[in-house]
Amino acid sequence: MQVNWESIIQATYEKVKDLDDKGVVASYIPELVHVNPDSFGVHLSTIDHIQYGVGHFDVKFSIQSIAKVLSLSLAYQIVGDKIWTRLGVEPSGTAFNSLVQLEADKGIPRNPFINAGAIVISDILLSHLKNPKDDFLSFIRSIANNPELDYSSRIAASEKSAGFLNVALCNFIKSFGNIHNDPSDVLDFYFDLCSLEMSCRELSELFLFLANNGRHLSTNKPILTSSQCKRVNALMQTCGFYDESGEFAFKVGLPGKSGVGGGIVAVHPNQYTIAVWSPKLNGKGNSYKGMRFLEAFTTESQLSIF
Amino acid sequence: MQVNWESIIQATYEKVKDLDDKGVVASYIPELVHVNPDSFGVHLSTIDHIQYGVGHFDVKFSIQSIAKVLSLSLAYQIVGDKIWTRLGVEPSGTAFNSLVQLEADKGIPRNPFINAGAIVISDILLSHLKNPKDDFLSFIRSIANNPELDYSSRIAASEKSAGFLNVALCNFIKSFGNIHNDPSDVLDFYFDLCSLEMSCRELSELFLFLANNGRHLSTNKPILTSSQCKRVNALMQTCGFYDESGEFAFKVGLPGKSGVGGGIVAVHPNQYTIAVWSPKLNGKGNSYKGMRFLEAFTTESQLSIF
Amino acid sequence: MQVNWESIIQATYEKVKDLDDKGVVASYIPELVHVNPDSFGVHLSTIDHIQYGVGHFDVKFSIQSIAKVLSLSLAYQIVGDKIWTRLGVEPSGTAFNSLVQLEADKGIPRNPFINAGAIVISDILLSHLKNPKDDFLSFIRSIANNPELDYSSRIAASEKSAGFLNVALCNFIKSFGNIHNDPSDVLDFYFDLCSLEMSCRELSELFLFLANNGRHLSTNKPILTSSQCKRVNALMQTCGFYDESGEFAFKVGLPGKSGVGGGIVAVHPNQYTIAVWSPKLNGKGNSYKGMRFLEAFTTESQLSIF
Amino acid sequence: MQVNWESIIQATYEKVKDLDDKGVVASYIPELVHVNPDSFGVHLSTIDHIQYGVGHFDVKFSIQSIAKVLSLSLAYQIVGDKIWTRLGVEPSGTAFNSLVQLEADKGIPRNPFINAGAIVISDILLSHLKNPKDDFLSFIRSIANNPELDYSSRIAASEKSAGFLNVALCNFIKSFGNIHNDPSDVLDFYFDLCSLEMSCRELSELFLFLANNGRHLSTNKPILTSSQCKRVNALMQTCGFYDESGEFAFKVGLPGKSGVGGGIVAVHPNQYTIAVWSPKLNGKGNSYKGMRFLEAFTTESQLSIF
Repeated sequence: MQVNWESIIQATYEKVKDLDDKGVVASYIPELVHVNPDSFGVHLSTIDHIQYGVGHFDVKFSIQSIAKVLSLSLAYQIVGDKIWTRLGVEPSGTAFNSLVQLEADKGIPRNPFINAGAIVISDILLSHLKNPKDDFLSFIRSIANNPELDYSSRIAASEKSAGFLNVALCNFIKSFGNIHNDPSDVLDFYFDLCSLEMSCRELSELFLFLANNGRHLSTNKPILTSSQCKRVNALMQTCGFYDESGEFAFKVGLPGKSGVGGGIVAVHPNQYTIAVWSPKLNGKGNSYKGMRFLEAFTTESQLSIF
Repeated sequence: MQVNWESIIQATYEKVKDLDDKGVVASYIPELVHVNPDSFGVHLSTIDHIQYGVGHFDVKFSIQSIAKVLSLSLAYQIVGDKIWTRLGVEPSGTAFNSLVQLEADKGIPRNPFINAGAIVISDILLSHLKNPKDDFLSFIRSIANNPELDYSSRIAASEKSAGFLNVALCNFIKSFGNIHNDPSDVLDFYFDLCSLEMSCRELSELFLFLANNGRHLSTNKPILTSSQCKRVNALMQTCGFYDESGEFAFKVGLPGKSGVGGGIVAVHPNQYTIAVWSPKLNGKGNSYKGMRFLEAFTTESQLSIF
Repeated sequence: MQVNWESIIQATYEKVKDLDDKGVVASYIPELVHVNPDSFGVHLSTIDHIQYGVGHFDVKFSIQSIAKVLSLSLAYQIVGDKIWTRLGVEPSGTAFNSLVQLEADKGIPRNPFINAGAIVISDILLSHLKNPKDDFLSFIRSIANNPELDYSSRIAASEKSAGFLNVALCNFIKSFGNIHNDPSDVLDFYFDLCSLEMSCRELSELFLFLANNGRHLSTNKPILTSSQCKRVNALMQTCGFYDESGEFAFKVGLPGKSGVGGGIVAVHPNQYTIAVWSPKLNGKGNSYKGMRFLEAFTTESQLSIF
Repeated sequence: MQVNWESIIQATYEKVKDLDDKGVVASYIPELVHVNPDSFGVHLSTIDHIQYGVGHFDVKFSIQSIAKVLSLSLAYQIVGDKIWTRLGVEPSGTAFNSLVQLEADKGIPRNPFINAGAIVISDILLSHLKNPKDDFLSFIRSIANNPELDYSSRIAASEKSAGFLNVALCNFIKSFGNIHNDPSDVLDFYFDLCSLEMSCRELSELFLFLANNGRHLSTNKPILTSSQCKRVNALMQTCGFYDESGEFAFKVGLPGKSGVGGGIVAVHPNQYTIAVWSPKLNGKGNSYKGMRFLEAFTTESQLSIF
């Protein structure tokens, strides 16, 4: 099928740009508020090498929880399906119930995209990587052929200073025996992962391997097996947006992942990735304009997976 | 892409048929136990008019909760997006938490595929149909071009005699004001819907409209709009298998719906539907062999949507 | 110790009478709203035969949940400690969690004073009494030497018409097997029990056996054994006021039981009972002025059990 | 009333001593297991200066959570009723739900005797005491006229090494803003408090002020006001035994507090205190023989408060 990406994206961008943005910038991480709240960028990358961006698509932002897909991918590559003995693959049901759910499930996080699950993934990586922080960075730089990808020490420090809830989560899981390293080491690494910064263009390029059956687009080398890639996509579909995951599948119809920095990346298997960024968040913690853009985009392009 | 459906289905069927079936036949509805526990049938229907069945694909069974997709479809057709003021589109998170969740969400069921949600859908249909039981039957018979589809009064009566939990659910929702009709009328209709019987062949044919953008395959008349169809598929993907929905997306990668009668139907948008039936259920209430078959089938055929 | 009951009660009554009553009359049972919201009565009965009332102490009102102490007493008398295989003796923790708690505890109500527990007690009585409604009335009439005690069919009918939550509770418990009779028979009897009407004077006289070691004050015949009586008092102390039970122990320091009709009865073992009635309820469902009166009364008289 | 304490205690002790003890010694704090599991001591102190002990009543043990009554008393003395803006007075309902409950109640612990509540009390003391650890020790030494009371640094260190759940709790409460000091300082102080060691004799003497209207028995100086004393007793009655508090009120009928070291202290207002110690715990975390002894003791002596 021949899609005129450019005109669809351009038209959708124009329509959403001027919407009255009901969202608010995340404030629980002090540093995150120092962002231009009206930023709005979109970038598409297809496996046929089409690239198209509008707005602030080249401005770096804090990808926050989107990094959970990347840390899962590296852990999955290293450990394989054994990671599922330490966490599940089911939606968590509600926004803030991670602690409740952990109590019921005895320290086994429901999935890798809630904080509890990503903390366990961090613990797994810590046990397997020699220099966790450097090795992880090498991993994503090599996927993206992009040596400029980096952490923000400013954001990481800010998160550490306010991360009491994550300290609680990590120690709670440790009390069930499902954290093997020292909780403060695990949290340090976790906060570093969340502090990754990149632009919409860089983000959509970085995620292309998930639209390409787990393979590096230019070298065709496998990063994940085909089956692992499908499973990561399935997890993004069912668990990528906290308790708005159902809504996202319902309205957008693509696997995706959001972060409280206002970024969203979505993947159409075998076709394309699209990254959106707008910092004001809706009540569920997902980018208000980002959600609206993607809904309009898949409606217009008729390119949801459903 | 040219797929040799026949050989993939045949080979997968043979492989799964002789697995040691760890499941048990549902017993909470007394009548359901009167089934041959070793039944195992599969039937595929493509939008290109390919039909292929193996095993007991022509034996009628109780589709149970699979009917929830059909009652949702009719309510969605009649009322449109206004139904979402009365129930949500999010996964419920756990198997048995419907009552807990209803308490937290003040009588708004999490989605149309948990019992609470299907009861609200029944209430909506009751308010809009003249002869609910007959009208619903006409609806599905016309979709399937199959005048033989019917309820089982034996199964319905059996469920009524043991349906205390559903009586509790319906009255609990009523206490929040989200049931408009008399609870016993709502429950009678609900139990009738659950008692529908059909074969794998009939089931896969009936669901073809969801693989065909909401349109009747032979007449091309719309049953649902394209957008409604995508949304029903998305809901099956995120909520179709209780608290095994994530697992199903992860391992099978298709929208689908299961029932405690041991049936599962899955939809590959724009391609095909496949129905599986084997009465023994795993610990989550889904057909043990059915799940195993579909996992092997999409792995083999490389035809998940992810 | 010589206490000048009369002056303490009179002074406390005057002080509380003119408080700005922040409460509201219960409205979920339609008939309950037809009460004079400014009613306020108090009556004390001691085991030394002192009787003293002020205000509307001779006006009958709907005792509602206070009846749960009486149905527990009769069931305890008939069945003995075996009743504790069907319900617990622990506070429930929160106001509205009866359904949540029942789910976690598999149909075993936390205590006999939450609705779920009182419904199980009704079921037990139904299994043991020949003419439940008449036999129960005879039981309380004989305790009180008062043939005028009676149900209100008007209140009972009103409750039945709006009792969806109790229908939900009873059927939910039945789904766990902890209701042995037909749910609608159990509920009919339960609603009758809740409809008992009496005045503060009658109520304080009726409860005197619990201040008298379980014995009828005039005949000295045992209604409960001494140990059973202590246990009923202990249950009132820990569970008598829903999720305000701790607060009541903390501020008033007496075993007691409240009802949504605005009545409260409290028992000082070996000394006295006191009944208070004022229909406007605080946010926890307990009489606003009643709580205030009893707090001031035990502070003034220095007669809490602690 | 003239009670022959000696013979009742002696007889009850003999009866309970040889019971088959179904309990197990607490193991979650590594150091606690180094105790003689068959230790069993009882000591009574009355406000009439009667003292009577049997068994290992003079062996020091780790009082653990019993210290929560003492830290509450000091905080209540210093801050008064304002402490109730930071925690509640209601039973928590279940054993392990502190995290669940904190989530629902936004960081306000249900009562001062669950861990979450005692951690908030520790935080309050930290804000008001110059040398918290020393000042608290002075407080209890002066109450007891006993300069030998002391912490166990060995136990405190052991608890710190394994206290992940308490670290989780403290940081979780901090995330709601209800901890004002640094979480690790609060936890250090909290673990010190829990490490107090004393014998049954010392424990029953130390608690006598709660049987004496809040006053020091020998000097008659107030430690708590009469009203504060009643309230602390009421809290022990409703919340002193985790989710066995109802059971304790029901079977023993006295305010009391238990610790996982196997100690229990109970208070009969205006009469006596009794301390029991036996390290093996029942399934709810309370001393198996201790509970049995107190039940038999109050049944025999007819001296429950109910």
